[in-house]
Amino acid sequence: MLTGFCRQDTWERAYHSYGYDRTDHAVFGRYPNPPDVVAHPRSEAELEAVLEWCADKGHCVIPYGGGSSVVEGVTPPEDRGPIVTVALDQLDQVLEIDGVSRAARIQAGVFGPHLEDQLRPAGFTLRHFPQSFSGSTLGGWIATRSGGHYGTNQTHIDDFVESVRMLTPRGWWETRCLPASGAGPDPNRWVIGSEGALSVISEAWMRIQARPRFRAGASVQFTSWEAGYEASRQIAQAKLWPANFRSLDPELAAGSAGLTGAHSLLIIGFESSEMSQRWNIDQAVAIARASGGIVDDSGISVDDGDGKASSGAGASGAWRQAFISGGTGIGAAAGLGLVAGTFETAITWDRWPSFDAAVRTATVDALREVCGSGSVNCRFSHVYTDGPAPYYTYLGAFRNGADHLEQQRAVKQAASEAIMKAGGTITHHHAVGRLHRPWYDHERPELFAGALRAAKRSVDPDGILNPGVLIDP
Amino acid sequence: MLTGFCRQDTWERAYHSYGYDRTDHAVFGRYPNPPDVVAHPRSEAELEAVLEWCADKGHCVIPYGGGSSVVEGVTPPEDRGPIVTVALDQLDQVLEIDGVSRAARIQAGVFGPHLEDQLRPAGFTLRHFPQSFSGSTLGGWIATRSGGHYGTNQTHIDDFVESVRMLTPRGWWETRCLPASGAGPDPNRWVIGSEGALSVISEAWMRIQARPRFRAGASVQFTSWEAGYEASRQIAQAKLWPANFRSLDPELAAGSAGLTGAHSLLIIGFESSEMSQRWNIDQAVAIARASGGIVDDSGISVDDGDGKASSGAGASGAWRQAFISGGTGIGAAAGLGLVAGTFETAITWDRWPSFDAAVRTATVDALREVCGSGSVNCRFSHVYTDGPAPYYTYLGAFRNGADHLEQQRAVKQAASEAIMKAGGTITHHHAVGRLHRPWYDHERPELFAGALRAAKRSVDPDGILNPGVLIDP
Repeated sequence: MLTGFCRQDTWERAYHSYGYDRTDHAVFGRYPNPPDVVAHPRSEAELEAVLEWCADKGHCVIPYGGGSSVVEGVTPPEDRGPIVTVALDQLDQVLEIDGVSRAARIQAGVFGPHLEDQLRPAGFTLRHFPQSFSGSTLGGWIATRSGGHYGTNQTHIDDFVESVRMLTPRGWWETRCLPASGAGPDPNRWVIGSEGALSVISEAWMRIQARPRFRAGASVQFTSWEAGYEASRQIAQAKLWPANFRSLDPELAAGSAGLTGAHSLLIIGFESSEMSQRWNIDQAVAIARASGGIVDDSGISVDDGDGKASSGAGASGAWRQAFISGGTGIGAAAGLGLVAGTFETAITWDRWPSFDAAVRTATVDALREVCGSGSVNCRFSHVYTDGPAPYYTYLGAFRNGADHLEQQRAVKQAASEAIMKAGGTITHHHAVGRLHRPWYDHERPELFAGALRAAKRSVDPDGILNPGVLIDP
Repeated sequence: MLTGFCRQDTWERAYHSYGYDRTDHAVFGRYPNPPDVVAHPRSEAELEAVLEWCADKGHCVIPYGGGSSVVEGVTPPEDRGPIVTVALDQLDQVLEIDGVSRAARIQAGVFGPHLEDQLRPAGFTLRHFPQSFSGSTLGGWIATRSGGHYGTNQTHIDDFVESVRMLTPRGWWETRCLPASGAGPDPNRWVIGSEGALSVISEAWMRIQARPRFRAGASVQFTSWEAGYEASRQIAQAKLWPANFRSLDPELAAGSAGLTGAHSLLIIGFESSEMSQRWNIDQAVAIARASGGIVDDSGISVDDGDGKASSGAGASGAWRQAFISGGTGIGAAAGLGLVAGTFETAITWDRWPSFDAAVRTATVDALREVCGSGSVNCRFSHVYTDGPAPYYTYLGAFRNGADHLEQQRAVKQAASEAIMKAGGTITHHHAVGRLHRPWYDHERPELFAGALRAAKRSVDPDGILNPGVLIDP
């Protein structure tokens, strides 16, 4: 049975050796421990068969969605084997749409664009657009607690999961499909974020949205980064819940939205399937202006679903496309001789100003040491009432004669240590994988690690699922 | 050391033998297994001391907040002993207020009104008003996944927890204080809803709100229950996020809001600390009217914070007070010779009409059998985009010659079985306790039970914490 959907050719094994960082490694031809087999189950029966085989033989299993991990979440560990990577790409269907409840039953292996294609004819959308949208899958989003493009309110994939169906070495785990429950700890929340260490996710009931017809937006400039982020705090705390809400520091606003470098930029976007968002954008702009925001009325765009926008979308349209497509061009950085990367976190507002200063200083210092010089910019990818989720991008010139990946790691390490020391989280939505383990171990309560380890043992007694991710045996 | 805060007098032991149902039992003088000791630790050091003593001796520990459990969550099991009930009422302070992030560090034993008293001078409120508000505590809300009065959007206590500090037999478990994180499964969500089976909660960082100054509300009538709940679905799915949002069936609308019995009632309330809510209420009323809702403009009230409401609050004001105070007068039912109770659940919209019919039929049939006759009414306590959280109240006349509690149990059993069969959850916010165990065991995935059991063993190896709640050893 396994031969029908399992592959062992070199391309398959090389491709599934890495996540999004595969280009970095391919440039240098590094494949220390590729998977021995790559399975592409086409049904739950085939998924059961491959997991049963691995459990019997003690092979390691690496669940693989779109392979967009930037944290070595799907990279086979060098000290374990044999490795069977289970790619879910053949389980890619929307199986049911419940238009009354606005929910859909969806297979885990569907990629973002294909998922939207299947919901669109019925007038719906999941409307979960992580930056990796085109190269990642529903199952991957659930496994890594993906953060979508919603800038405020319900944005993490956690908020959209009604129920999860997943296979463990001990059998199936499926939760009831419910809008909410108070019956014990939420079983869904026990597995959302488990990064393939507890199970292979097969499908989920997801909350979906009616496709938006009404939109309103504005791009507001501020004469400082401080004024811009202060306005974003006030708008978030006013609970207007904009769908798009990005705050860009002056350097990033210059680089990606064409500003002069003297101003920070706050992009605000509302959307609705039911009603005009004119009132909402007016309220948000009023708060922004009261905090020093610069935007004239022609910079406010309102689209009431009749195809006639009352103004141009301005910088925000360009920014949105740049956000989805990756923006910074980091993907090809290794080939271009750049040491570049991104990292992201979250912190409460009271600690944010000193946090930002400490993290920038540590990162620039590390770039100076590693590359001679370098730069860091920041935007808020998400904003909560109690704090922002800042997303940093750094860039330096690769120094000849030194190992490229070592230089990357040195900067990453300095930034991560600064984040932990200043009280942040090691990741807001990139997940832990193997890369963030040292800081994750420091961040979580030690007793939680023990509880997670015990829970894992109860569903995966031989520790075959994604070893080295989140916990050690 | 223990003698300073531990009590063994009859009153203490009797009082802590039950939760909110203590009146039922007191009437009949039933105290089969009162706690042997009731501890009131005044510091974390005293909490450590009593837990250490219990762990050494193998005594059972029952964490006790306000004692408002209606599901036997704090009732000592009859087959275990000795029992030490740990009442948190001495740990009742707001320790820190972070006005910038809108968050506060609060001790777990504080009762609702006292908590609000401590936040009010700084202009803040937790604004979590479960029906048990005056008789329950922050720690109890976290332990039981309490549902507050917010009718939509963020309403469960889960949404307001930044971090939890709690003591287990293996030591302290404290999470980082963060607005959000994607680092592995959320450790807070592993313990929110754990009902004292994993730990004694000592304090938490909670998201708080600026006190609302702007309000808007309306009470809309419909000529049927169906029309009323359909309007509530549409308003919820339009994501207007009203703070108060209650749908009452015609029978309940007659009994508690003075309507004639021919109309259902939808109560809509918005509030904000920042801006007028006139636009929001106008939008919600427009949707309600389009679904057949009856309300004239004088029934719409807008208070723009200047103390001048533009109209009377009408039925909604009366209803809110009735909600907080318990409303149905069930507390004294036993003394009045009534078989009465409430149960609550959640279900997706597509299944809701048949679910409602099935649950009502089963409950009325059971009342007929047990009491000769009886009635059931329903309201939505919370409404989600994908389904309502219905709250049912039943009432029948106690039949002489039969055991009172047995009659209660028979009705409860019939209703619970109907809920489970029709796909609902055994509880949306009343928790599991010992009363809901049989149905909870059926609702959760079996592998989750195993994972929870393993996690419990890792923090409570001897199983001393609230035995019989959620899981068996």
